[in-house]
Amino acid sequence: MIRTIAFDADDTLWHNETYYREAEALFCEMLAPYHDAEWIRQRLTETEMGNLAHFGYGIKSFTLSMIETAVELSEGRITGHEVQRIIRLGRDMLAHPVEPLSEVQATLEALQRRYELLVITKGDLLDQESKLARSGLGHYFSGLEVVSEKDEAAYRAILARRKIDPAEFLMVGNSVKSDILPVVAMGGQAVYVPYATTWVHEHVADADESAFTTLEHVGLLSAWLEIH
Amino acid sequence: MIRTIAFDADDTLWHNETYYREAEALFCEMLAPYHDAEWIRQRLTETEMGNLAHFGYGIKSFTLSMIETAVELSEGRITGHEVQRIIRLGRDMLAHPVEPLSEVQATLEALQRRYELLVITKGDLLDQESKLARSGLGHYFSGLEVVSEKDEAAYRAILARRKIDPAEFLMVGNSVKSDILPVVAMGGQAVYVPYATTWVHEHVADADESAFTTLEHVGLLSAWLEIH
Repeated sequence: MIRTIAFDADDTLWHNETYYREAEALFCEMLAPYHDAEWIRQRLTETEMGNLAHFGYGIKSFTLSMIETAVELSEGRITGHEVQRIIRLGRDMLAHPVEPLSEVQATLEALQRRYELLVITKGDLLDQESKLARSGLGHYFSGLEVVSEKDEAAYRAILARRKIDPAEFLMVGNSVKSDILPVVAMGGQAVYVPYATTWVHEHVADADESAFTTLEHVGLLSAWLEIH
Repeated sequence: MIRTIAFDADDTLWHNETYYREAEALFCEMLAPYHDAEWIRQRLTETEMGNLAHFGYGIKSFTLSMIETAVELSEGRITGHEVQRIIRLGRDMLAHPVEPLSEVQATLEALQRRYELLVITKGDLLDQESKLARSGLGHYFSGLEVVSEKDEAAYRAILARRKIDPAEFLMVGNSVKSDILPVVAMGGQAVYVPYATTWVHEHVADADESAFTTLEHVGLLSAWLEIH
Protein backbone atom coordinates (compact mmCIF):
# COMPACT_ATOMS: atom_id res chain seq x y z
CA MET A 1 0.00 0.00 0.00
CA ILE A 2 1.87 3.07 -1.26
CA ARG A 3 1.05 6.40 0.38
CA THR A 4 4.02 8.59 -0.54
CA ILE A 5 5.65 8.87 -3.96
CA ALA A 6 8.94 10.73 -4.27
CA PHE A 7 10.33 11.83 -7.61
CA ASP A 8 13.89 12.53 -8.54
CA ALA A 9 14.11 15.98 -10.18
CA ASP A 10 16.74 16.25 -12.94
CA ASP A 11 15.92 14.06 -15.96
CA THR A 12 12.91 12.57 -14.17
CA LEU A 13 10.66 15.63 -13.85
CA TRP A 14 12.49 17.90 -16.30
CA HIS A 15 15.30 17.86 -18.84
CA ASN A 16 18.73 18.46 -17.34
CA GLU A 17 21.51 16.25 -18.67
CA THR A 18 20.81 17.68 -22.13
CA TYR A 19 21.92 21.12 -20.96
CA TYR A 20 25.10 19.75 -19.43
CA ARG A 21 25.87 18.02 -22.73
CA GLU A 22 25.15 21.26 -24.63
CA ALA A 23 27.45 23.22 -22.35
CA GLU A 24 30.07 20.51 -22.73
CA ALA A 25 29.85 20.75 -26.54
CA LEU A 26 30.39 24.53 -26.41
CA PHE A 27 33.27 23.97 -24.01
CA CYS A 28 34.90 21.47 -26.39
CA GLU A 29 34.47 23.94 -29.24
CA MET A 30 36.18 26.65 -27.21
CA LEU A 31 39.13 24.37 -26.46
CA ALA A 32 39.33 22.96 -30.00
CA PRO A 33 42.62 24.85 -30.67
CA TYR A 34 44.25 22.80 -27.88
CA HIS A 35 42.77 19.28 -28.11
CA ASP A 36 40.12 17.16 -29.82
CA ALA A 37 36.64 16.92 -28.32
CA GLU A 38 36.84 13.33 -27.10
CA TRP A 39 40.03 14.00 -25.13
CA ILE A 40 38.56 17.18 -23.60
CA ARG A 41 35.39 15.34 -22.58
CA GLN A 42 37.40 12.62 -20.86
CA ARG A 43 39.57 15.11 -18.96
CA LEU A 44 36.49 17.12 -17.92
CA THR A 45 34.81 13.99 -16.57
CA GLU A 46 37.97 13.12 -14.61
CA THR A 47 38.13 16.64 -13.13
CA GLU A 48 34.45 16.44 -12.21
CA MET A 49 34.93 13.11 -10.42
CA GLY A 50 37.98 14.44 -8.59
CA ASN A 51 36.04 17.52 -7.49
CA LEU A 52 32.84 15.75 -6.36
CA ALA A 53 34.15 15.18 -2.84
CA HIS A 54 35.03 18.87 -2.38
CA PHE A 55 32.47 20.66 -4.49
CA GLY A 56 29.51 18.26 -4.60
CA TYR A 57 26.90 18.15 -7.38
CA GLY A 58 25.40 20.90 -9.46
CA ILE A 59 26.16 23.63 -11.95
CA LYS A 60 28.57 25.68 -9.80
CA SER A 61 30.68 22.59 -9.28
CA PHE A 62 30.52 21.78 -13.01
CA THR A 63 31.55 25.35 -13.89
CA LEU A 64 34.58 25.20 -11.59
CA SER A 65 35.52 21.86 -13.15
CA MET A 66 35.26 23.33 -16.66
CA ILE A 67 37.55 26.21 -15.67
CA GLU A 68 40.06 23.88 -14.07
CA THR A 69 40.05 21.57 -17.09
CA ALA A 70 40.52 24.51 -19.45
CA VAL A 71 43.57 25.72 -17.51
CA GLU A 72 45.10 22.24 -17.44
CA LEU A 73 44.42 21.30 -21.07
CA SER A 74 45.72 24.64 -22.35
CA GLU A 75 48.72 24.37 -20.01
CA GLY A 76 47.82 27.75 -18.56
CA ARG A 77 47.44 29.43 -21.96
CA ILE A 78 43.67 29.86 -21.61
CA THR A 79 42.85 33.60 -21.61
CA GLY A 80 40.85 35.59 -19.11
CA HIS A 81 38.17 36.18 -21.70
CA GLU A 82 37.80 32.47 -22.33
CA VAL A 83 37.46 31.91 -18.58
CA GLN A 84 34.77 34.56 -18.56
CA ARG A 85 32.94 32.71 -21.35
CA ILE A 86 33.00 29.54 -19.25
CA ILE A 87 31.50 31.37 -16.27
CA ARG A 88 28.84 32.69 -18.62
CA LEU A 89 28.14 29.13 -19.79
CA GLY A 90 27.49 28.20 -16.16
CA ARG A 91 25.29 31.20 -15.52
CA ASP A 92 23.28 30.45 -18.68
CA MET A 93 22.72 26.90 -17.46
CA LEU A 94 21.39 28.25 -14.15
CA ALA A 95 18.97 30.56 -15.96
CA HIS A 96 17.85 27.97 -18.53
CA PRO A 97 14.07 27.49 -18.82
CA VAL A 98 12.94 24.37 -17.01
CA GLU A 99 11.12 22.10 -19.40
CA PRO A 100 9.09 19.25 -17.84
CA LEU A 101 9.41 15.88 -19.56
CA SER A 102 6.39 14.78 -21.55
CA GLU A 103 3.48 13.35 -19.52
CA VAL A 104 4.98 14.54 -16.22
CA GLN A 105 2.38 17.23 -15.59
CA ALA A 106 -0.60 14.99 -16.39
CA THR A 107 0.84 12.21 -14.22
CA LEU A 108 1.38 14.49 -11.21
CA GLU A 109 -2.09 15.95 -11.69
CA ALA A 110 -3.59 12.46 -11.49
CA LEU A 111 -1.43 11.20 -8.63
CA GLN A 112 -1.70 14.18 -6.29
CA ARG A 113 -5.30 13.29 -5.41
CA ARG A 114 -4.32 9.93 -3.97
CA TYR A 115 -0.72 10.21 -2.81
CA GLU A 116 1.57 12.54 -0.93
CA LEU A 117 4.16 13.66 -3.50
CA LEU A 118 7.76 14.67 -2.73
CA VAL A 119 10.84 15.67 -4.68
CA ILE A 120 14.14 14.14 -3.52
CA THR A 121 17.20 15.33 -5.38
CA LYS A 122 20.91 16.07 -5.28
CA GLY A 123 22.51 19.29 -6.49
CA ASP A 124 22.67 22.86 -5.31
CA LEU A 125 19.90 23.81 -2.92
CA LEU A 126 19.21 27.22 -4.46
CA ASP A 127 19.35 25.84 -8.00
CA GLN A 128 16.91 23.02 -7.28
CA GLU A 129 14.47 25.31 -5.45
CA SER A 130 14.63 27.70 -8.37
CA LYS A 131 14.06 24.93 -10.92
CA LEU A 132 11.06 23.56 -9.06
CA ALA A 133 9.57 27.05 -8.97
CA ARG A 134 10.30 27.71 -12.66
CA SER A 135 8.97 24.29 -13.72
CA GLY A 136 5.45 25.26 -12.69
CA LEU A 137 5.17 21.87 -10.94
CA GLY A 138 5.83 23.09 -7.40
CA HIS A 139 2.20 22.99 -6.24
CA TYR A 140 1.94 19.23 -6.79
CA PHE A 141 4.51 18.53 -4.07
CA SER A 142 4.27 18.74 -0.31
CA GLY A 143 8.05 18.93 0.05
CA LEU A 144 11.44 19.25 -1.63
CA GLU A 145 14.42 17.46 -0.11
CA VAL A 146 17.87 18.33 -1.43
CA VAL A 147 20.55 15.96 -0.17
CA SER A 148 24.29 15.90 -0.78
CA GLU A 149 24.29 12.17 -1.57
CA LYS A 150 21.37 9.83 -2.30
CA ASP A 151 22.42 6.80 -0.29
CA GLU A 152 20.44 4.52 2.00
CA ALA A 153 21.19 6.68 5.07
CA ALA A 154 19.90 9.80 3.33
CA TYR A 155 16.60 8.11 2.41
CA ARG A 156 16.23 6.67 5.91
CA ALA A 157 16.74 10.12 7.44
CA ILE A 158 14.13 11.74 5.20
CA LEU A 159 11.55 9.03 5.86
CA ALA A 160 12.18 9.09 9.62
CA ARG A 161 11.85 12.88 9.79
CA ARG A 162 8.62 12.75 7.80
CA LYS A 163 7.35 9.69 9.66
CA ILE A 164 6.95 7.68 6.44
CA ASP A 165 6.98 3.87 6.62
CA PRO A 166 9.45 2.53 3.99
CA ALA A 167 6.87 -0.11 3.05
CA GLU A 168 4.51 2.70 2.03
CA PHE A 169 7.12 4.61 0.06
CA LEU A 170 7.80 4.61 -3.69
CA MET A 171 10.74 6.37 -5.37
CA VAL A 172 10.65 7.21 -9.07
CA GLY A 173 13.83 8.21 -10.86
CA ASN A 174 16.23 7.84 -13.75
CA SER A 175 19.29 6.71 -11.81
CA VAL A 176 19.58 3.07 -10.75
CA LYS A 177 22.44 4.03 -8.46
CA SER A 178 20.79 6.99 -6.68
CA ASP A 179 17.04 6.48 -7.00
CA ILE A 180 16.53 2.74 -7.10
CA LEU A 181 19.11 0.56 -5.31
CA PRO A 182 19.31 2.49 -1.98
CA VAL A 183 15.49 2.66 -1.76
CA VAL A 184 15.06 -1.06 -2.43
CA ALA A 185 17.81 -1.76 0.14
CA MET A 186 15.89 0.00 2.92
CA GLY A 187 12.63 -1.80 2.13
CA GLY A 188 10.93 0.73 -0.12
CA GLN A 189 9.72 0.33 -3.67
CA ALA A 190 11.29 1.92 -6.69
CA VAL A 191 10.38 2.53 -10.31
CA TYR A 192 13.17 3.17 -12.76
CA VAL A 193 12.33 5.50 -15.67
CA PRO A 194 15.44 5.77 -17.84
CA TYR A 195 16.35 9.06 -19.48
CA ALA A 196 17.85 9.23 -22.96
CA THR A 197 21.34 9.91 -21.58
CA THR A 198 22.79 9.01 -18.19
CA TRP A 199 25.69 10.82 -16.59
CA VAL A 200 28.65 8.41 -16.43
CA HIS A 201 28.87 8.89 -12.63
CA GLU A 202 25.40 7.35 -12.25
CA HIS A 203 26.12 4.18 -14.22
CA VAL A 204 25.80 0.86 -12.40
CA ALA A 205 27.45 -2.08 -14.13
CA ASP A 206 25.52 -5.09 -12.85
CA ALA A 207 22.30 -4.08 -11.10
CA ASP A 208 19.81 -6.85 -10.30
CA GLU A 209 16.94 -5.72 -12.50
CA SER A 210 14.45 -8.11 -10.93
CA ALA A 211 14.51 -6.04 -7.71
CA PHE A 212 12.74 -3.05 -9.26
CA THR A 213 10.35 -2.06 -12.03
CA THR A 214 11.43 -0.30 -15.20
CA LEU A 215 8.92 1.87 -17.05
CA GLU A 216 9.59 3.39 -20.43
CA HIS A 217 8.13 6.76 -19.48
CA VAL A 218 6.49 8.34 -16.44
CA GLY A 219 3.09 8.34 -18.14
CA LEU A 220 2.87 4.60 -17.41
CA LEU A 221 3.13 5.15 -13.66
CA SER A 222 -0.59 5.62 -12.94
CA ALA A 223 -1.46 2.35 -14.67
CA TRP A 224 1.35 0.54 -12.85
CA LEU A 225 0.07 1.83 -9.51
CA GLU A 226 -3.44 0.53 -10.29
CA ILE A 227 -2.16 -3.03 -10.33
CA HIS A 228 0.11 -2.71 -7.28
CA MET B 1 8.87 28.47 27.71
CA ILE B 2 11.61 27.63 25.20
CA ARG B 3 11.87 24.00 24.07
CA THR B 4 13.94 24.23 20.87
CA ILE B 5 17.09 26.28 20.36
CA ALA B 6 18.49 26.67 16.85
CA PHE B 7 21.98 27.95 16.20
CA ASP B 8 23.33 29.61 13.13
CA ALA B 9 26.51 27.81 12.00
CA ASP B 10 29.14 30.11 10.46
CA ASP B 11 30.58 32.60 12.95
CA THR B 12 28.12 31.45 15.63
CA LEU B 13 29.30 27.87 16.20
CA TRP B 14 32.66 28.12 14.43
CA HIS B 15 34.97 30.63 12.78
CA ASN B 16 34.17 31.28 9.13
CA GLU B 17 34.33 34.93 8.05
CA THR B 18 38.00 34.94 9.11
CA TYR B 19 38.80 32.41 6.37
CA TYR B 20 36.96 34.42 3.74
CA ARG B 21 38.97 37.50 4.77
CA GLU B 22 42.19 35.49 4.62
CA ALA B 23 41.36 34.21 1.13
CA GLU B 24 40.44 37.75 0.12
CA ALA B 25 43.81 39.05 1.35
CA LEU B 26 45.65 36.41 -0.72
CA PHE B 27 43.45 37.29 -3.68
CA CYS B 28 44.31 41.00 -3.35
CA GLU B 29 47.99 40.11 -3.15
CA MET B 30 47.72 38.07 -6.35
CA LEU B 31 46.06 40.99 -8.16
CA ALA B 32 48.40 43.63 -6.68
CA PRO B 33 50.10 44.13 -10.10
CA TYR B 34 46.75 45.34 -11.47
CA HIS B 35 45.09 47.35 -8.67
CA ASP B 36 45.33 48.32 -5.02
CA ALA B 37 43.74 46.12 -2.38
CA GLU B 38 40.88 48.43 -1.43
CA TRP B 39 39.68 48.71 -5.03
CA ILE B 40 39.92 44.94 -5.54
CA ARG B 41 37.95 44.29 -2.35
CA GLN B 42 35.19 46.65 -3.47
CA ARG B 43 34.93 45.06 -6.93
CA LEU B 44 34.90 41.57 -5.41
CA THR B 45 32.06 42.52 -3.08
CA GLU B 46 30.10 43.95 -6.02
CA THR B 47 30.62 40.78 -8.05
CA GLU B 48 29.54 38.66 -5.08
CA MET B 49 26.34 40.67 -4.63
CA GLY B 50 25.60 40.45 -8.35
CA ASN B 51 26.11 36.70 -8.29
CA LEU B 52 24.08 35.92 -5.15
CA ALA B 53 20.82 35.56 -7.07
CA HIS B 54 22.36 33.03 -9.49
CA PHE B 55 24.97 31.25 -7.41
CA GLY B 56 23.70 31.59 -3.83
CA TYR B 57 25.89 31.52 -0.73
CA GLY B 58 29.00 29.54 0.05
CA ILE B 59 32.56 28.91 -1.01
CA LYS B 60 31.87 27.70 -4.57
CA SER B 61 29.97 30.88 -5.25
CA PHE B 62 32.75 32.97 -3.67
CA THR B 63 35.38 31.16 -5.78
CA LEU B 64 33.48 31.85 -9.01
CA SER B 65 33.16 35.51 -7.96
CA MET B 66 36.92 35.73 -7.31
CA ILE B 67 37.64 34.30 -10.77
CA GLU B 68 35.20 36.67 -12.44
CA THR B 69 36.63 39.67 -10.57
CA ALA B 70 40.17 38.66 -11.50
CA VAL B 71 39.27 38.49 -15.20
CA GLU B 72 37.54 41.87 -15.10
CA LEU B 73 40.13 43.74 -13.05
CA SER B 74 43.01 42.40 -15.16
CA GLU B 75 41.02 43.16 -18.32
CA GLY B 76 41.43 39.55 -19.37
CA ARG B 77 45.19 39.50 -18.75
CA ILE B 78 44.93 37.10 -15.80
CA THR B 79 46.78 33.88 -16.64
CA GLY B 80 45.54 30.33 -16.49
CA HIS B 81 47.93 29.58 -13.66
CA GLU B 82 46.56 32.47 -11.61
CA VAL B 83 43.03 31.17 -12.20
CA GLN B 84 44.23 27.79 -10.99
CA ARG B 85 45.59 29.42 -7.82
CA ILE B 86 42.17 30.97 -7.18
CA ILE B 87 40.47 27.58 -7.54
CA ARG B 88 43.04 26.20 -5.10
CA LEU B 89 42.18 29.03 -2.67
CA GLY B 90 38.55 27.89 -2.80
CA ARG B 91 39.43 24.24 -2.35
CA ASP B 92 41.66 25.12 0.63
CA MET B 93 38.77 26.99 2.22
CA LEU B 94 36.55 23.92 1.84
CA ALA B 95 39.16 21.73 3.51
CA HIS B 96 39.99 24.17 6.30
CA PRO B 97 39.81 22.75 9.84
CA VAL B 98 36.59 23.78 11.55
CA GLU B 99 37.39 25.58 14.78
CA PRO B 100 34.49 26.02 17.25
CA LEU B 101 34.26 29.45 18.87
CA SER B 102 35.26 29.59 22.51
CA GLU B 103 32.63 28.36 25.00
CA VAL B 104 30.49 26.83 22.23
CA GLN B 105 31.18 23.23 23.18
CA ALA B 106 30.58 23.76 26.92
CA THR B 107 27.37 25.66 26.17
CA LEU B 108 25.98 22.95 23.88
CA GLU B 109 26.96 20.29 26.40
CA ALA B 110 24.93 22.10 29.08
CA LEU B 111 21.94 22.93 26.88
CA GLN B 112 21.46 19.54 25.19
CA ARG B 113 20.08 18.04 28.41
CA ARG B 114 17.17 20.47 28.53
CA TYR B 115 16.48 21.55 24.97
CA GLU B 116 16.18 20.17 21.47
CA LEU B 117 19.08 21.71 19.54
CA LEU B 118 19.12 22.45 15.80
CA VAL B 119 21.47 24.09 13.31
CA ILE B 120 19.85 26.41 10.76
CA THR B 121 22.21 27.85 8.19
CA LYS B 122 22.69 29.13 4.66
CA GLY B 123 25.45 28.04 2.33
CA ASP B 124 26.30 24.94 0.36
CA LEU B 125 24.58 21.81 1.62
CA LEU B 126 27.61 19.53 1.26
CA ASP B 127 29.96 22.11 2.77
CA GLN B 128 27.77 22.70 5.83
CA GLU B 129 27.24 18.97 6.42
CA SER B 130 30.98 18.47 6.17
CA LYS B 131 31.73 21.35 8.55
CA LEU B 132 29.27 20.09 11.16
CA ALA B 133 30.91 16.66 10.98
CA ARG B 134 34.44 18.08 11.17
CA SER B 135 33.54 20.43 14.04
CA GLY B 136 32.96 17.50 16.38
CA LEU B 137 29.72 19.19 17.49
CA GLY B 138 27.33 17.10 15.37
CA HIS B 139 26.10 14.85 18.19
CA TYR B 140 24.64 17.78 20.13
CA PHE B 141 22.09 18.47 17.40
CA SER B 142 18.95 16.61 16.40
CA GLY B 143 18.93 18.23 12.96
CA LEU B 144 20.70 20.39 10.41
CA GLU B 145 18.63 22.63 8.13
CA VAL B 146 20.39 24.28 5.19
CA VAL B 147 18.23 26.90 3.49
CA SER B 148 18.93 29.10 0.50
CA GLU B 149 17.69 32.24 2.27
CA LYS B 150 16.97 32.84 5.97
CA ASP B 151 13.75 34.79 5.71
CA GLU B 152 10.51 34.56 7.66
CA ALA B 153 9.02 32.03 5.21
CA ALA B 154 12.03 29.73 5.55
CA TYR B 155 11.81 29.73 9.36
CA ARG B 156 8.04 29.15 9.24
CA ALA B 157 8.51 26.18 6.91
CA ILE B 158 11.13 24.58 9.16
CA LEU B 159 9.04 25.03 12.31
CA ALA B 160 5.88 23.73 10.61
CA ARG B 161 7.66 20.64 9.30
CA ARG B 162 9.15 19.92 12.71
CA LYS B 163 5.91 20.82 14.52
CA ILE B 164 7.62 23.48 16.65
CA ASP B 165 5.52 26.29 18.13
CA PRO B 166 7.23 29.66 17.34
CA ALA B 167 6.56 30.75 20.93
CA GLU B 168 8.73 27.85 22.13
CA PHE B 169 11.56 28.56 19.67
CA LEU B 170 14.79 30.47 20.20
CA MET B 171 17.27 31.32 17.43
CA VAL B 172 20.89 32.21 18.27
CA GLY B 173 23.11 33.81 15.65
CA ASN B 174 25.52 36.51 14.61
CA SER B 175 23.43 38.11 11.85
CA VAL B 176 20.66 40.55 12.80
CA LYS B 177 19.34 40.31 9.25
CA SER B 178 19.24 36.51 8.92
CA ASP B 179 19.07 35.12 12.45
CA ILE B 180 17.21 37.73 14.46
CA LEU B 181 14.68 39.92 12.60
CA PRO B 182 12.82 37.17 10.66
CA VAL B 183 12.52 35.02 13.80
CA VAL B 184 11.18 37.90 15.90
CA ALA B 185 8.76 38.74 13.06
CA MET B 186 7.19 35.27 13.15
CA GLY B 187 6.77 35.30 16.94
CA GLY B 188 9.92 33.48 18.01
CA GLN B 189 12.68 34.66 20.30
CA ALA B 190 16.18 35.52 19.18
CA VAL B 191 19.54 36.13 20.81
CA TYR B 192 22.13 38.07 18.86
CA VAL B 193 25.77 37.12 19.50
CA PRO B 194 27.93 39.41 17.35
CA TYR B 195 31.06 38.05 15.71
CA ALA B 196 34.22 40.14 15.40
CA THR B 197 33.57 40.83 11.71
CA THR B 198 30.28 40.82 9.83
CA TRP B 199 29.98 40.28 6.10
CA VAL B 200 28.76 43.51 4.50
CA HIS B 201 25.76 41.69 2.99
CA GLU B 202 24.45 40.91 6.50
CA HIS B 203 24.55 44.50 7.79
CA VAL B 204 21.27 46.07 8.87
CA ALA B 205 21.35 49.84 9.19
CA ASP B 206 18.61 50.61 11.70
CA ALA B 207 17.45 47.48 13.52
CA ASP B 208 15.22 47.98 16.57
CA GLU B 209 17.54 46.59 19.24
CA SER B 210 14.83 46.47 21.88
CA ALA B 211 13.15 43.60 20.01
CA PHE B 212 15.90 41.11 20.77
CA THR B 213 18.66 40.30 23.23
CA THR B 214 22.35 40.85 22.53
CA LEU B 215 24.91 38.72 24.35
CA GLU B 216 28.64 39.34 24.14
CA HIS B 217 29.48 35.66 23.71
CA VAL B 218 27.59 32.37 23.56
CA GLY B 219 28.87 31.36 27.02
CA LEU B 220 26.33 33.76 28.53
CA LEU B 221 23.41 31.90 26.95
CA SER B 222 22.81 29.37 29.75
CA ALA B 223 22.60 32.12 32.37
CA TRP B 224 20.25 34.12 30.16
CA LEU B 225 17.97 31.10 29.71
CA GLU B 226 17.81 30.64 33.51
CA ILE B 227 16.10 34.00 33.92
CA HIS B 228 13.77 33.64 30.89
